[in-house]
Amino acid sequence: MAEYSALFRRLDAKSPFSSGNDIDPIETKLLPFDIGIPDLSLLPGDDYARAAAEVFGGPRFNEAVSYSAYEGITRLREQVALRRHTNVENVFITTGATQGIFLTISAYVDPGDVVVVENPTFPFALKALRLAGADIRTVPTGPRGLDVDALEELLESGVNVRLVYTVSDFQNPTGVTLSARSKARLLDLAERYDFVIAADSPYRDLWFDQPPAEFPQEERELKDGGHLVEIGSFSKTLGPGWRVGWNIADAATVERFAAYRTSAEVHPSGVAQSIVSTLLGWDGWYDGLVAKQRETYRRKAYALYDTLIDVFGADIVVRRPEGGYFLWAQFPERLDPAADGRRRELARRNVRVVQGDSFYPYDTGSRALRLAFSFLPEEDLIEGSRRIGQSLLG
Amino acid sequence: MAEYSALFRRLDAKSPFSSGNDIDPIETKLLPFDIGIPDLSLLPGDDYARAAAEVFGGPRFNEAVSYSAYEGITRLREQVALRRHTNVENVFITTGATQGIFLTISAYVDPGDVVVVENPTFPFALKALRLAGADIRTVPTGPRGLDVDALEELLESGVNVRLVYTVSDFQNPTGVTLSARSKARLLDLAERYDFVIAADSPYRDLWFDQPPAEFPQEERELKDGGHLVEIGSFSKTLGPGWRVGWNIADAATVERFAAYRTSAEVHPSGVAQSIVSTLLGWDGWYDGLVAKQRETYRRKAYALYDTLIDVFGADIVVRRPEGGYFLWAQFPERLDPAADGRRRELARRNVRVVQGDSFYPYDTGSRALRLAFSFLPEEDLIEGSRRIGQSLLG
Repeated sequence: MAEYSALFRRLDAKSPFSSGNDIDPIETKLLPFDIGIPDLSLLPGDDYARAAAEVFGGPRFNEAVSYSAYEGITRLREQVALRRHTNVENVFITTGATQGIFLTISAYVDPGDVVVVENPTFPFALKALRLAGADIRTVPTGPRGLDVDALEELLESGVNVRLVYTVSDFQNPTGVTLSARSKARLLDLAERYDFVIAADSPYRDLWFDQPPAEFPQEERELKDGGHLVEIGSFSKTLGPGWRVGWNIADAATVERFAAYRTSAEVHPSGVAQSIVSTLLGWDGWYDGLVAKQRETYRRKAYALYDTLIDVFGADIVVRRPEGGYFLWAQFPERLDPAADGRRRELARRNVRVVQGDSFYPYDTGSRALRLAFSFLPEEDLIEGSRRIGQSLLG
Repeated sequence: MAEYSALFRRLDAKSPFSSGNDIDPIETKLLPFDIGIPDLSLLPGDDYARAAAEVFGGPRFNEAVSYSAYEGITRLREQVALRRHTNVENVFITTGATQGIFLTISAYVDPGDVVVVENPTFPFALKALRLAGADIRTVPTGPRGLDVDALEELLESGVNVRLVYTVSDFQNPTGVTLSARSKARLLDLAERYDFVIAADSPYRDLWFDQPPAEFPQEERELKDGGHLVEIGSFSKTLGPGWRVGWNIADAATVERFAAYRTSAEVHPSGVAQSIVSTLLGWDGWYDGLVAKQRETYRRKAYALYDTLIDVFGADIVVRRPEGGYFLWAQFPERLDPAADGRRRELARRNVRVVQGDSFYPYDTGSRALRLAFSFLPEEDLIEGSRRIGQSLLG
């Protein structure tokens, strides 16, 4: 299309996480710390099959296999609304957070528009922003998430910001979370300076000690003129293969998202939506599942954290994860994991990591690694930490 | 996004099939001839449940619930390639024909580009073309599909055509099919004048007497530089709720489609793809299913056709359907179904139809109805034909 065709010419299929190398490993077992997917043993296949049997053999059959609403199946929207404390009209079912981000950017960002991101941030969002022709500016990712002071300074300097993209809870890559106060301040700024917050929060349910704070409630139930799009997903809890997530926005924006569908895709798979909705409909099922996942991921996160402290001592800066999938480890210059020799050592020991620099739109020299603790079993996390130690400490 | 944002401002959520009215019907039973969906009794829920159980309890579990390839799950691509006599690298799994059309237009059409469509044609494609800013030109839909002579004349007149969109087999709305000779000629013209053919063929498997002809085989296996995108779908045979279809194009175009996914949606539901692929993997299952569907749809189509002839005699121009979902009925001026009084009579008799004018980008006065015979049971098709007769003949 017009614009789409121009966009097609700018497309780049490369993953922001390039990790290719030709080194023969000395360890036979690959330990992929780069894979940000669920522990597959925590995804209950039996329950999925039972829910599918209910859908295909019961009253939801037509809803699943025929056409359904552009905004998503009503019952699923109701269930998300209930869980996320908002109204049905504010919920738009997406095919996952990637579409949630894409649609939010599509709806708000024109070429040349200034978009502020945390530094570091989620690189697939950067990819979508670059494709949109956004003028990407950064503010630091602080210990409690996006540095709202730095953003305010930028706004006061007269920069006309259209959108702020933040991974608001258990950030990918650093694991940090915006406090209630920061969320309220961020929204105040959005209203004052008229920009939109895209709050990407796929890890929200996977907290270890306490759930992340919410953005102010009034904003999350608006009919129109909102300044917030919350982007959520079942990918981290039920598995990314479902391709079922949601955006929460003012009702008018939900309608705009739905209008896009009429020409582009109709709706997310009704089969996937109906099975997920059936699972959510079982009393206590989803809460039980995420409770178990939280426990497992906490145990894994702490095991990884403890081992790294053990191995590196004072030679690592790392925060104990509070939720999500990732641990962010920073190293002193003499242990820089991005140095050629150390990259080679990591490859030789058959450990795959994501270098911190992948998460910065402009800067290099982060001397950081993003390590996913979600996928690997605990013993591999421990073994992998030792291999990372050997690779960096020599 | 840049372009996406501009596009969002042009979005229009209205269905091209508007049929609202406030008339109290005299018949209690609604007969919706406007619904172009499968006969739901022909969709085997038990088999779907069994395939789902296989996926969720077997070796395909990870492929279904985790991330998979942007182009679609390899086994499904192989199965489509085998059925459609092409290579895996030429198959791109879509979320259905709507996405197939959207991506094809996105990949090829810039604003102002001339796109030729049949007249009448599928209005959702017109919607996507208008959104793309295409300069839409028409050539007649003849008794054997797109009028290739008229297209050649247009090309010879010096019009620079970028893309030709055709519903090549059992066209929606008229039911006509391009012959092998027309397909070969169309491709010759595409090569000579350097345009791309978007051949939308979701009804291909639902032929009554013989399968529709193919485009020349060499074109369907190219690495690059092709002039044909074939758009296919399982929506008409397995149900639209799956959101699983395919595009067949040269391998380089398949890669461009995949690049779009990296920023926009990741991939179609892995759950849906894996279950569909499991069904296709059962020896003879799909062939058996469509054989049964063909028989049922033929029976329904003929019943509708025979009754209409019975009711209207010489006052109807109608071709007996050769496949697909739709019958196209044209009437003399004195029975024009678009006349206000006759629209009212149809509504009063609780019959929903799609007026022929919905399928013409510019013209009105078609005096035609598109009647779907796929969804309604045979007795309703017969009863509905009688009510249409009463409404038009008075």
